[in-house]
Amino acid sequence: MSNKMMRAAVMDRPLSIAVQSVEIPRPKPDEALVRVRCIGVCGSDLHYYERGRIGRYVVTKPIILGHELAGDVVEVGSEVANVAAGDRVAVEPGVTCGRCAYCKSGRYNLCPDVVFMATPPVDGAWAEYITIRSDFLFKLPDTVSYEEGALLEPLSVGIHAMKRAQAGPGDRVFISGLGPIGLLAGAAAKLFGVTDITASEVIAERRGLAGRMGIDRVLDPSDADAFAAAMSEQGGYDVVVESSGNGAAIRHTVAAARRGGRIVLIGLPSVDDIPLNVPQIIDNEIDVRGVFRYANTYETAIRALGSAPCDIRTIITHRFPLEQIKEAMELARLEKQSCVKVMIYPGEMTE
Amino acid sequence: MSNKMMRAAVMDRPLSIAVQSVEIPRPKPDEALVRVRCIGVCGSDLHYYERGRIGRYVVTKPIILGHELAGDVVEVGSEVANVAAGDRVAVEPGVTCGRCAYCKSGRYNLCPDVVFMATPPVDGAWAEYITIRSDFLFKLPDTVSYEEGALLEPLSVGIHAMKRAQAGPGDRVFISGLGPIGLLAGAAAKLFGVTDITASEVIAERRGLAGRMGIDRVLDPSDADAFAAAMSEQGGYDVVVESSGNGAAIRHTVAAARRGGRIVLIGLPSVDDIPLNVPQIIDNEIDVRGVFRYANTYETAIRALGSAPCDIRTIITHRFPLEQIKEAMELARLEKQSCVKVMIYPGEMTE
Amino acid sequence: MSNKMMRAAVMDRPLSIAVQSVEIPRPKPDEALVRVRCIGVCGSDLHYYERGRIGRYVVTKPIILGHELAGDVVEVGSEVANVAAGDRVAVEPGVTCGRCAYCKSGRYNLCPDVVFMATPPVDGAWAEYITIRSDFLFKLPDTVSYEEGALLEPLSVGIHAMKRAQAGPGDRVFISGLGPIGLLAGAAAKLFGVTDITASEVIAERRGLAGRMGIDRVLDPSDADAFAAAMSEQGGYDVVVESSGNGAAIRHTVAAARRGGRIVLIGLPSVDDIPLNVPQIIDNEIDVRGVFRYANTYETAIRALGSAPCDIRTIITHRFPLEQIKEAMELARLEKQSCVKVMIYPGEMTE
Amino acid sequence: MSNKMMRAAVMDRPLSIAVQSVEIPRPKPDEALVRVRCIGVCGSDLHYYERGRIGRYVVTKPIILGHELAGDVVEVGSEVANVAAGDRVAVEPGVTCGRCAYCKSGRYNLCPDVVFMATPPVDGAWAEYITIRSDFLFKLPDTVSYEEGALLEPLSVGIHAMKRAQAGPGDRVFISGLGPIGLLAGAAAKLFGVTDITASEVIAERRGLAGRMGIDRVLDPSDADAFAAAMSEQGGYDVVVESSGNGAAIRHTVAAARRGGRIVLIGLPSVDDIPLNVPQIIDNEIDVRGVFRYANTYETAIRALGSAPCDIRTIITHRFPLEQIKEAMELARLEKQSCVKVMIYPGEMTE
Repeated sequence: MSNKMMRAAVMDRPLSIAVQSVEIPRPKPDEALVRVRCIGVCGSDLHYYERGRIGRYVVTKPIILGHELAGDVVEVGSEVANVAAGDRVAVEPGVTCGRCAYCKSGRYNLCPDVVFMATPPVDGAWAEYITIRSDFLFKLPDTVSYEEGALLEPLSVGIHAMKRAQAGPGDRVFISGLGPIGLLAGAAAKLFGVTDITASEVIAERRGLAGRMGIDRVLDPSDADAFAAAMSEQGGYDVVVESSGNGAAIRHTVAAARRGGRIVLIGLPSVDDIPLNVPQIIDNEIDVRGVFRYANTYETAIRALGSAPCDIRTIITHRFPLEQIKEAMELARLEKQSCVKVMIYPGEMTE
Repeated sequence: MSNKMMRAAVMDRPLSIAVQSVEIPRPKPDEALVRVRCIGVCGSDLHYYERGRIGRYVVTKPIILGHELAGDVVEVGSEVANVAAGDRVAVEPGVTCGRCAYCKSGRYNLCPDVVFMATPPVDGAWAEYITIRSDFLFKLPDTVSYEEGALLEPLSVGIHAMKRAQAGPGDRVFISGLGPIGLLAGAAAKLFGVTDITASEVIAERRGLAGRMGIDRVLDPSDADAFAAAMSEQGGYDVVVESSGNGAAIRHTVAAARRGGRIVLIGLPSVDDIPLNVPQIIDNEIDVRGVFRYANTYETAIRALGSAPCDIRTIITHRFPLEQIKEAMELARLEKQSCVKVMIYPGEMTE
Repeated sequence: MSNKMMRAAVMDRPLSIAVQSVEIPRPKPDEALVRVRCIGVCGSDLHYYERGRIGRYVVTKPIILGHELAGDVVEVGSEVANVAAGDRVAVEPGVTCGRCAYCKSGRYNLCPDVVFMATPPVDGAWAEYITIRSDFLFKLPDTVSYEEGALLEPLSVGIHAMKRAQAGPGDRVFISGLGPIGLLAGAAAKLFGVTDITASEVIAERRGLAGRMGIDRVLDPSDADAFAAAMSEQGGYDVVVESSGNGAAIRHTVAAARRGGRIVLIGLPSVDDIPLNVPQIIDNEIDVRGVFRYANTYETAIRALGSAPCDIRTIITHRFPLEQIKEAMELARLEKQSCVKVMIYPGEMTE
Repeated sequence: MSNKMMRAAVMDRPLSIAVQSVEIPRPKPDEALVRVRCIGVCGSDLHYYERGRIGRYVVTKPIILGHELAGDVVEVGSEVANVAAGDRVAVEPGVTCGRCAYCKSGRYNLCPDVVFMATPPVDGAWAEYITIRSDFLFKLPDTVSYEEGALLEPLSVGIHAMKRAQAGPGDRVFISGLGPIGLLAGAAAKLFGVTDITASEVIAERRGLAGRMGIDRVLDPSDADAFAAAMSEQGGYDVVVESSGNGAAIRHTVAAARRGGRIVLIGLPSVDDIPLNVPQIIDNEIDVRGVFRYANTYETAIRALGSAPCDIRTIITHRFPLEQIKEAMELARLEKQSCVKVMIYPGEMTE
């Protein structure tokens, strides 16, 4: 396949993105070439598209975004044994070194040398093909669709949060924020056997999706009375999942947790310092645990999805061919009320 | 209610059991009086009935057996605050001291001073009423029936086994033996999010119940080929649950576990020494963990049952009024093929 | 011993404390009467003495303070089996219910019904005798002195913090604040095998004690350069222990922790809201864990003290007979630089 | 250094070993060339020397044995950043893939694709030089000698066993067998803060070393009375470490553990099936955990050794130059009473 060309969405500066013809990458001996079937738009993709940077990561040259994907293996390098051409696969988009103390101790999400798709200057996968080290490919059984395969990436954040929170049956869980991560954290909680989930979300459309993700009740945080009622009725939650990044919501997690409860923080706030009630953290011996990406989640997720009690594709509100990437991004940017997850199709638009 | 009498099933020697009139017990200040609605026959009850002893516990005077029960609170002692007359409750039948190092560290199932119902010389609950320290009563929501409340006791063994095994989504679980404990271990595995369960059981009738408890596939261990196939297909199980007490099954757990897997042993064998493959335990770094009763399971179970994916009452194969206790025990003794769980009703036979 | 009288230090309002004659308490059947040999002055005692309240706990009637003690069992109730008259014992000063979900799950420090000495309206132990439920008494071997026995209480906070922080060999530990709790957290870290401990403390006298508690290096936090150097040299600490309660120190814990590190918060700040760098908690996947008192520490501490690498009595800077309680409190109040731990002796002043 | 030759001890068949001239290996881009300073004789080396095989590993062509070593980095490949020429280093002798589910989850000791020194057909390090992937090299501070660096390998087994056993302060530990692994398990227990260690060993010379490794008391297991006394006095051990591989000792671990205790099995027995008391494992809810090599121990060990309470070099009973490898092996083979650890020196014999 040398010298062949493919279509890819290249962003050269904020709000400027277009599909171009670029070379199809060649797999190294330990890599596979994957034909991308579908790939989601993540909040971070949108953030780079709008502002050209996230924290210390700055877009300084044209970049291909996108890192939530599934596809078919087309070709494998000479050392690859775990997948073969023709396999349907989900792609875990961060290639870690496997050799540092974090990788060796099982927390490879903290690897300082990770090469993560769509994090400048690393290209992502809004393209027809990508190459990746084959140990980050996971075969999909026939029962798991490409779209579900692509959603394994944001679902992995939810699964990792549940593992960090040690959530399980009998736990009462509260989720603040029902964007894609919050909704999939609900689905992840169901996978872990949690049977009592309450959520809060300001956008009515998103609240409307909660029930289909296994969330038992959902509040509008602007309704203070409903909120107070939900808190007092439960006597504090065993697990509080913060996915909104909203400063007030982050502050509220401490009061929402029961004595001895666990808070997992996923959503990045727009400012650094958030005032937290430290005496209450101490008096109630609360655990506050940061959640950064995920590790060791794909196999778990694929096995669990087979008999999942909810359809995670519920969060997909829009689908676009790759050629309409500009329209897709503008929709995601301008219609934050109605748009939850946008899925991009480099080829035919079948699930 | 002083001096009032009730009906209770008293066993005076092996195979000799009859309903008699005995005094209704009076609750102490920290106890409640509970009217028993339904109560199961456990394998240990049957063992005492047949042989008059289990290990170091010997029936030396007439005893009331039975310890799997639910009922209604009728009266509470002066210090009781957690339940009130009229409450529907499940009864956790082992009253622990709350003061030893085991109790204080959260492993109260190992309390050396536990007073456990139907363990000689402590009376059990095959009677119209019992008293118990109120912190071992758990209110049942309307969605949980008395029969489910009674089954919380054997289900608790399964839940405790899952906690000991750290079972969760993505784990492949193997259960040997599908008596009440094995079947409920399957239900417990489902509550913990396990989605791939294989079981083995020699009795066809019991294999027939497996699917309704969420067990994905079930083998006849006497079919060596099927067994070998199941093992090789899975590459070893993440978690192996031994509930049969059969010596060969216990030995087999080591081969059934994958590298790094966990084995939980529940079923007591009839002999002490079981040869285990120690080099394999070491080479594969396997964990073998004993499971003795349970701790901190009732709240979890009650919350989880509300949305359980299977109906644990499936295991109830027979129901008898208390007056027919002799017939019930003889059936349980003689029909081990068809009889899984017998439920006894001191009053009307409604669920 | 009925109707006999003893001497006790009674505080009737802030800054007003005097030794009075009160009745010797009588042990209930599950209690023991303990002759107090020595008893420390805790920061909370001093706080009640100065201000008459801590948070929601208010001194509204005369109270006996003090809760860090060791002594001799003088008499036991009829049900007591774990100690006998003549035993030298340390006293764990919070009597928990043993029956709530927190107690049963091993986190009895969160018991909502705890009766904790010297927490209004419960009397403490600045007296010749106290009674307590006997399961909170721990026999001292000959190798452990009364003073060490009394110091088991603040040492327990350090041990609990180490358990909450999962500290062990190979961990680099940073402790902010070297009051009694910080110094004993250093000793506790040594007991857990930690071999690299850095601390910060503004008071020079306290820094001077650090080495004798096994702390490897100590900084003056007002020396910004030394601080920056210590941080960069270590690349972030595995475990950060905050015992100062100082707002700036609490904020600093997030920067002091390495990626994937653990922060334990012990010191209560004087204001509720402390701004914490939440993006850094998330990006570095840090755990922030509150520490409230302790649970299951006394046995561990007594066994470990036998071969401890440091003498925890180092922190005792002053000793007073009970009759001089007013002088002791004034010293503790006015000489915060030189005074670390004051020990009170109701009887003869031998260790 | 191309084409240069070095001296290496080559074993061509059981009991036949001689020093030969072989090519110095060349480091790959991610490898380092290490000059071996000292290297121990392990029980597995001796086993291959005596019998030519261990289980499924068979010596079918000439092999260089040895895998417990420290040395100096001489040259590094182009991609190596963690060490440089001149660094004093310990060598972790098993190179794992970093890409399988075991490696990624932190249990790389279970990696099925590990390349482990001196495990046929992989050559070991009884030679002047070796090459190894650089992430398995660990810099030694000046305070840690080459001999200690070489002993980190067997010490790692002890450290891993302590982690598997969750041993810590307050735990009472029993070690059966005081060969190199048992003695170093004692040292490891000390590093984890364990302060009460009992051991049993049949060889008097080895019992004599126990005290210097921090072991508090040591029994001759052939003295049944002493044994019974030690057991009853302790009421069962929190942690039992089996390092002897003796069948009777393995069986005894179950009785030696307290209720709720943990057993770690390290020593491989000469037969597969060892009868274990399964009812006791269940009734006492004991954990039996296999220990296979180690993972993530070197950094911990190097940091902890700096202030270790005992000198692990105590176990070195003999030292030989590489040229006398035949004498060294014969001594190890024939003098099992007096010989604990033999250290081999390819160059000058300084520590």
